Amino acid sequence: MNFYDKLKFTSDGLIPAIIQDHATGRVLMMAWMNRASIEATVATGKTHFWSRSRQKFWMKGESSGHTQAVKDIAFDCDGDTLLIQVEQIGSACHEGYRSCFFRSAQKDGGERVTEPQLATPEQIYGKK
Amino acid sequence: MNFYDKLKFTSDGLIPAIIQDHATGRVLMMAWMNRASIEATVATGKTHFWSRSRQKFWMKGESSGHTQAVKDIAFDCDGDTLLIQVEQIGSACHEGYRSCFFRSAQKDGGERVTEPQLATPEQIYGKK
Repeated sequence: MNFYDKLKFTSDGLIPAIIQDHATGRVLMMAWMNRASIEATVATGKTHFWSRSRQKFWMKGESSGHTQAVKDIAFDCDGDTLLIQVEQIGSACHEGYRSCFFRSAQKDGGERVTEPQLATPEQIYGKK
Repeated sequence: MNFYDKLKFTSDGLIPAIIQDHATGRVLMMAWMNRASIEATVATGKTHFWSRSRQKFWMKGESSGHTQAVKDIAFDCDGDTLLIQVEQIGSACHEGYRSCFFRSAQKDGGERVTEPQLATPEQIYGKK
């Protein structure tokens, strides 16, 4: 029994992957994988995803250099979500924050930024 | 500007919510919310979800007693995923594990259970 056989993909062939910093426990991002990106992640030890907006296979960090080295791949009871422990180089978020979850909701309905911005998108990707 | 206005729901009106133990950092589960379940979560301080399989609004722990007290609600850069910090009573997983992510993939394609089962489903929900 291969663990792939326990996974349930959406009708589009996708499964959500939660990416967590293995050392600090900080949840860094959530992105979607298809079977090919899981296989590439396992084979290379670097996270690969499927971009729904761009309809494109991509390696995390391919343009920013901010790659993720995989430490563990877990899957949930229903087999419909992955939890991947990684060692993150630089920032997980394309907006230059360590985690994409850098904003928290406030009781008054507003929001507050909960971590420092490490770099601007221009510094990461170059000026457009 | 209300934080709800920053959120992007799927065409079914849903958004995935990652649930994390605020004290240990353990990711417990991932489930889907609609706007009504987010509002109920904010209003009551207990997590509420939308079940896609049962097409039903539900409070986590309504039958098991294993509720989740909300400590923080964060949302990601794209506004399409929530990260909710909770204090978990009992087990998050309906299979009796603390976390739904109790299995990790092995290099040989197999799996290994990475945490103890705290109770059987029969102990949690009663014999069927």
